Amino acid sequence: MHFSLTDIENMDQRFKVNFINSLSGFKSANLIGSMDANDQHNLAIISSVFHLGADPALMGFINRPDSAERHTLSNIIETGVFTINNVTKTMYKQAHQTSARYAKSESEFEQTGLTPIFSNNHLAPYVEQSTIRIGLELVEQSQIKYNNTHLVIGKIVEVIVQDNVIKKDGYIDIEQLNTVMVSGLDNYHSSQRLERLAYAKVGTKPQALVI
Amino acid sequence: MHFSLTDIENMDQRFKVNFINSLSGFKSANLIGSMDANDQHNLAIISSVFHLGADPALMGFINRPDSAERHTLSNIIETGVFTINNVTKTMYKQAHQTSARYAKSESEFEQTGLTPIFSNNHLAPYVEQSTIRIGLELVEQSQIKYNNTHLVIGKIVEVIVQDNVIKKDGYIDIEQLNTVMVSGLDNYHSSQRLERLAYAKVGTKPQALVI
Repeated sequence: MHFSLTDIENMDQRFKVNFINSLSGFKSANLIGSMDANDQHNLAIISSVFHLGADPALMGFINRPDSAERHTLSNIIETGVFTINNVTKTMYKQAHQTSARYAKSESEFEQTGLTPIFSNNHLAPYVEQSTIRIGLELVEQSQIKYNNTHLVIGKIVEVIVQDNVIKKDGYIDIEQLNTVMVSGLDNYHSSQRLERLAYAKVGTKPQALVI
Repeated sequence: MHFSLTDIENMDQRFKVNFINSLSGFKSANLIGSMDANDQHNLAIISSVFHLGADPALMGFINRPDSAERHTLSNIIETGVFTINNVTKTMYKQAHQTSARYAKSESEFEQTGLTPIFSNNHLAPYVEQSTIRIGLELVEQSQIKYNNTHLVIGKIVEVIVQDNVIKKDGYIDIEQLNTVMVSGLDNYHSSQRLERLAYAKVGTKPQALVI
């Protein structure tokens, strides 16, 4: 079935939102922890976190300042720090609930039953129920010109993860850590490993790798 | 286990690349189809495609011009068009193989056995083996200041997908379309639906939704 630009533009608004949100494929599911200058905590589920580089170690995400995520961006600009925490099979419902439009004076941690914990080396709140916790410092923030979203880039300054899932070559078995993913706006999925493949080279066939 | 900024900076280079690439969670797996002004085709697997907005319908991805992806960016700037095609369970090995450093005069389609197909309404090549095919026009391209990567944003102008997986409210069941995802640099996974959850509201518990 072909949908043209006109077909897309003429879609019912809710239909269009679900349809377009499904197109990019499976999305990472992460909780962004932040606080304002008065130490009011915030927690927001974000499905647009992406890897940006290993050296320096950078991660980015897209923030929609007109949504329930609005306090995340203002907090990060105010304090310069935030955390990224993975969403797992055992708490994805609570993670999803952080997307409700709570007032700035309400902490999504308290409202959803997720627990803030702190590191000695980083100011922003981590999520105790997460199995991967990453501390970041803001390094770049810019508005996407074409729509009212913001690109936020952080430098990784701390990682907290159990060491028995880190493989010899540095790969972290995020499946074993019960990490889930999102499709569309609101569908949660777990994963099943198909295969690990060796670095692709011209003139050879893809080779399976032991993880 | 805590890793500090110093621990991260002192990691062996290959270990660091695998470790940091694992942190963002599961990534979408897509093939970007493009061509230069002489109609030389290119196909590149990219794990950083993300949803950017539904109205206008936008998608973005991160391009590393110093990697095997280098021809993708120059092609898109040259012709202004590209396609995004999902990676499926039946051809993820061929998709992975597109990341080998083929010369510009070699088409990754031919080299990996994936088949280019064309629409009457869009110039860039689609992948016949994909079950979601998206045609896009370049609308914005900018360098990330902090490292040598580029943000590429396209406007969706065509979508080709079978209609029996599109739900009444517009959600596309990408799991039924055998869409796979990536973790780390080179791990491929299939998905298993946990649940669809209703729009989160203050004062209610997360409710399951029929998909």
